[in-house]
Amino acid sequence: MVRPDMPKIVDHDERREALCLAAAKLIHEEGLEAATVRAIARAASCSTGVLAHYFADKDDLVAHVLAFVNHRPIARMLARLETEPVPASVISWLDEVLPLDEERRMEWSVRLAIWGVKPNLQTFAPIGQSSWIDGSRTLVELSKARGVLPADLDSDDFARRLTAAVMGASLCAMFEPTRFDPEWLRRFIADTLDEFVIGGVSAATLVSA
Amino acid sequence: MVRPDMPKIVDHDERREALCLAAAKLIHEEGLEAATVRAIARAASCSTGVLAHYFADKDDLVAHVLAFVNHRPIARMLARLETEPVPASVISWLDEVLPLDEERRMEWSVRLAIWGVKPNLQTFAPIGQSSWIDGSRTLVELSKARGVLPADLDSDDFARRLTAAVMGASLCAMFEPTRFDPEWLRRFIADTLDEFVIGGVSAATLVSA
Repeated sequence: MVRPDMPKIVDHDERREALCLAAAKLIHEEGLEAATVRAIARAASCSTGVLAHYFADKDDLVAHVLAFVNHRPIARMLARLETEPVPASVISWLDEVLPLDEERRMEWSVRLAIWGVKPNLQTFAPIGQSSWIDGSRTLVELSKARGVLPADLDSDDFARRLTAAVMGASLCAMFEPTRFDPEWLRRFIADTLDEFVIGGVSAATLVSA
Repeated sequence: MVRPDMPKIVDHDERREALCLAAAKLIHEEGLEAATVRAIARAASCSTGVLAHYFADKDDLVAHVLAFVNHRPIARMLARLETEPVPASVISWLDEVLPLDEERRMEWSVRLAIWGVKPNLQTFAPIGQSSWIDGSRTLVELSKARGVLPADLDSDDFARRLTAAVMGASLCAMFEPTRFDPEWLRRFIADTLDEFVIGGVSAATLVSA
């Protein structure tokens, strides 16, 4: 994507995201322990001094990497909400978070690596990045505003159901991708949310739509 | 539980379980990295030589510890199946796996710690110990045989649903125990399994039973 004639990335947030991506890939490939500040700097082709400019320490970096991988599926779903504002695609949007390809498996493996040493980190994502569950809630609120979900839906309860269903389905698929294939995952999530009629059609019906 | 007049534990499996328990507690309290063979031997009041007698290496020990914490809730549920063979208690049996007290939170924190460095370990539990999902399936089969679940239930699909719902609910409760309180967790799991009528009563109805 970066062409020689493009301006150098100088935007602070963009640069930090690029560093988070390099760190995430390293954690995915070699584990959290191997992802030292020095190794991340090497992977990102920068000095450890540059890293120090963006992250206070390893803990701060890890918190940002978790917020980064958690924010990515939310951002992809929000993009689809912009471009595909049709109720029939609601369930398929959740594909963005399920570990169905190498990129999304990478995001899950980073979550697992970080949760393994910092099980409480989920709740204190860095300022400016919403937590997983708050992200789900934002998505539900936006979907309601667009008429994709019923306006009288209990946003908090629905976001909790969505989060629990997606987390459970994703973990199972990480462990046994053959047994928990994409079709099964979509069906499970749709069934879990089925009491909520979406756009006048039950969620389960929408799987094959 | 151990009184001075009780015989020393000499049974090989029992001794190995006691070592797994000591290791699990250490992993829960100090993390997987801190749980060296030496530290586990100290916590279990034995020599590293004794540990070497029961486990080939650290990887083998970690695989046994994961199988141990995964087997515990299954064993507790099987015990309840023996002593409480009443359909109305099916959903409450699942409390045995949810992180509702310090012991069950310890089991979940050990799972998270091990999955964080060995995301593929779930599928190769040591011989003689079933994997999580196979354990769920065994439980479903036994419940069907006892008439607690309908005989024509698809055991494999039901076990997958049960596993995904319980994993998702448990992870959420580990991260945000207040937001995902016990009542919410039971309701979520019951709703997820609700299309399956249990003992002539819907699963959701059984939550408050």
